[in-house]
Amino acid sequence: MVMILSIASTGIAAGWTDIPRLSPTRGIIMEDPDLLSSAAVSDDLQTCYYPQTLDHFNYQPQSYGTFQQRYVMNFKYWGGANNSAPILAYLGAESPLNVSLTAIGFLNDSAVSFNALLVYIEHQYYGKSIPFGSREEAFKNASTLGYFNSAQAIADYAEIIMHIKSKLRAFYSPVIVVGGSYGGMLASWLRLKYPHVALGALASSAPILYFDKITPSGAYYSVVTKDFREASESCYQTIRNSWSVIDKIASQPNGLSTLSMIFNTCKPLTKSSELKIALKNMYALAAQYNSPPRYPVTVICRGIERKIFLVRFLQALLLMGIFLAILINKPMNPKQLKDGDGSEMVIPKGIGNGTMFQPAPFNLTSFIQHCKTIFGVLPRPHWVTSYYGGHDIKLILQRFGSNIIFSNGLRDPYSGGGVLENISESILAVKTVNGSHCLDILAQTASDPEWLVKQRQTEVKIIRGWIAQYYADLKDILFKQ
Amino acid sequence: MVMILSIASTGIAAGWTDIPRLSPTRGIIMEDPDLLSSAAVSDDLQTCYYPQTLDHFNYQPQSYGTFQQRYVMNFKYWGGANNSAPILAYLGAESPLNVSLTAIGFLNDSAVSFNALLVYIEHQYYGKSIPFGSREEAFKNASTLGYFNSAQAIADYAEIIMHIKSKLRAFYSPVIVVGGSYGGMLASWLRLKYPHVALGALASSAPILYFDKITPSGAYYSVVTKDFREASESCYQTIRNSWSVIDKIASQPNGLSTLSMIFNTCKPLTKSSELKIALKNMYALAAQYNSPPRYPVTVICRGIERKIFLVRFLQALLLMGIFLAILINKPMNPKQLKDGDGSEMVIPKGIGNGTMFQPAPFNLTSFIQHCKTIFGVLPRPHWVTSYYGGHDIKLILQRFGSNIIFSNGLRDPYSGGGVLENISESILAVKTVNGSHCLDILAQTASDPEWLVKQRQTEVKIIRGWIAQYYADLKDILFKQ
Repeated sequence: MVMILSIASTGIAAGWTDIPRLSPTRGIIMEDPDLLSSAAVSDDLQTCYYPQTLDHFNYQPQSYGTFQQRYVMNFKYWGGANNSAPILAYLGAESPLNVSLTAIGFLNDSAVSFNALLVYIEHQYYGKSIPFGSREEAFKNASTLGYFNSAQAIADYAEIIMHIKSKLRAFYSPVIVVGGSYGGMLASWLRLKYPHVALGALASSAPILYFDKITPSGAYYSVVTKDFREASESCYQTIRNSWSVIDKIASQPNGLSTLSMIFNTCKPLTKSSELKIALKNMYALAAQYNSPPRYPVTVICRGIERKIFLVRFLQALLLMGIFLAILINKPMNPKQLKDGDGSEMVIPKGIGNGTMFQPAPFNLTSFIQHCKTIFGVLPRPHWVTSYYGGHDIKLILQRFGSNIIFSNGLRDPYSGGGVLENISESILAVKTVNGSHCLDILAQTASDPEWLVKQRQTEVKIIRGWIAQYYADLKDILFKQ
Repeated sequence: MVMILSIASTGIAAGWTDIPRLSPTRGIIMEDPDLLSSAAVSDDLQTCYYPQTLDHFNYQPQSYGTFQQRYVMNFKYWGGANNSAPILAYLGAESPLNVSLTAIGFLNDSAVSFNALLVYIEHQYYGKSIPFGSREEAFKNASTLGYFNSAQAIADYAEIIMHIKSKLRAFYSPVIVVGGSYGGMLASWLRLKYPHVALGALASSAPILYFDKITPSGAYYSVVTKDFREASESCYQTIRNSWSVIDKIASQPNGLSTLSMIFNTCKPLTKSSELKIALKNMYALAAQYNSPPRYPVTVICRGIERKIFLVRFLQALLLMGIFLAILINKPMNPKQLKDGDGSEMVIPKGIGNGTMFQPAPFNLTSFIQHCKTIFGVLPRPHWVTSYYGGHDIKLILQRFGSNIIFSNGLRDPYSGGGVLENISESILAVKTVNGSHCLDILAQTASDPEWLVKQRQTEVKIIRGWIAQYYADLKDILFKQ
């Protein structure tokens, strides 16, 4: 629950408007406690660094600069290069690798059945994979941040995977790339752009269609609303009505002070939108990470409902205030905001009519201004669809490409921008009605519901099919030679 | 014949070692006579300029700079946006667009049967599509040249094609990209990297496998040798023996002066290698552009043979000297050498044993040094295969991608690095035994041999099949909606 609220409080302090994280897990760990060397992480892990090229697509002298990019390998289950045993490669998203190593259980949990080498690669500009020698230098200005984008990140991953295969002389080991959320987009795009590097991709909760008007901008908050409404009609109604109550209180003399007190904010609120954004993000994240066994949406709604007969709405707000208070004293580091997704990731997310939120259409102009202010970098809102496509995806990919799983939980608000129908025989949508964000690639637990266990089994079976076909192809081609 | 020798003489003057052009045609036209406005070019052509982004893969402030990129459209045959009529797009290679407009006849010749809009796009850094305001600025140093590469060029093409479709509201018009030689590589790579932009590609004489040890480095000169040997065994023997004769003459007192006189060079030769490189390049280009009806290889051999009974070898050299003399007085502009292929195009071309040339293994170190000296830019010899692949191409692409024709003439020395076998049902090799470089995409003529006519018909038929399938798919998907 603490984690759910971390973005909400960040939002309050920084006036951050509307970018729920595109991350497989809820946690934001900006510092680097170097979990890799701690006892929390298996002894089977080997940490390596690759001298990564700063800019793959440019030949200016500074483009040849390199930075140390971290990757971690686990050989424990590997069948070896001689057997062309598979490699499962996790592509880091927007967090240090440490977080992923413990959270992303899919690799570890399926390694035995694949005899797979496990590889985890950290995204440029995160954790220990920072160009220009230090985090401070790397995030200094638009010139040092200019290399921070998805095309470079995917090229980084391709180079490291090729390097590992070459170093291990595992030239014919099939590679399956795995990623969640933003990392899931990277995984699917890596398969599409570098089919010679990855045989297939498991792209979990990857909203690759949430760009450039492919998906209606209101999709995200429509799903959030649906999630709350499914959990409890009265909870949904309460939240729906809360915004005008907050506005009403705020408009009264000392109203903001009252709200600040109720919500126990560390700094007095200067406008009601600060509170509303925090609450909106709290609901959004509860929906996005609405995972079993606790189901945060249900927890929130139960809390609201328990109080509703006593003091109806105000008490419910108080309850939330208690949650918020947990994090509210933590000082906010503005540097945190620099860790967005690549600067071309303009997800046009707005709030349409008919949700439990106040309508707030997506405004590209103010989004661009916001990026410029915070990051010093102008986004290119059409570049994602120019480089990766997305429009009419079935028409384009039903006879092009292969071996991608797009997995989604339909309770995940980002599923609205995901691929939810099969595109071809091997570009497949695997979805669960009750799933939330990136559940399938997280570590399995004893309390996993049956549908989640089954989803993972389905995915493993599909990947096993790709690998079997690859080995058959390989045999054909080797015999021919 | 004059054209054949242009590189040879350039080689002599500049000490240029070994880069036969990767261009559909033999001509090197560095100046821009603006043929577009001359009577030589059809009135149906419309010239446009697109404000192209300088660097698509970087977000530094200077990356947002733009340059005017030229493209030309011909609407004469187009069936219109309402009918989703096709677009044939020629992707310029390393020459100004003017050259291509008259030479690349495939588009114009097949436009009627496709009801196609014709588009010709100029490559960045050529003709009128020069960044930084002027040719002089653009080629000044590694910083201004750093944007000059294939990944940027392909992104440029993708953006312009999307822009045209959007401007014409021809959202569902299928696009077939066409290119020859280096431009053929770009065409096949554009289809692979941007399937949402191009439905298919005709990649003529594209040596996409001539990188990173996929193809033996000696392949090019082996084919040159084969061409000469097939034309005439004695011609082949004469050339094979000539090198030691030249070395012998050169090693004698006044030998170089004698050779300079025989070959009528404008500057005295300072070493025999200058002459040998020029001759080697002349033979190479004759083989590469060994097109009907005149067949330059045959012409050269006939010339050599006619004289051979009189003075055997020396006279033959004299004869070549006459050819060389035609261009030898033309002052060499060092700027010409700046127009290489993209800086990552390291084709490891050497001369193995068993050819009619003196063996000269490819030397990567000296190649890199050479690039650094001439261009001020270090190549990245492995980048092409990292970004585009190439190793085990059948294994990789037989179940990935679609709709590419790799056409080759087997007398073209570059065919050694081409795709000569079908990869899948729609990634196809169309080859002719007697063809040379890029013949199929040049304008048809009355004297075209039957096999060439047939090759073009085959290509048109395949492309027609892609388009028919696309329309069927489009109908399916539109009906469903």
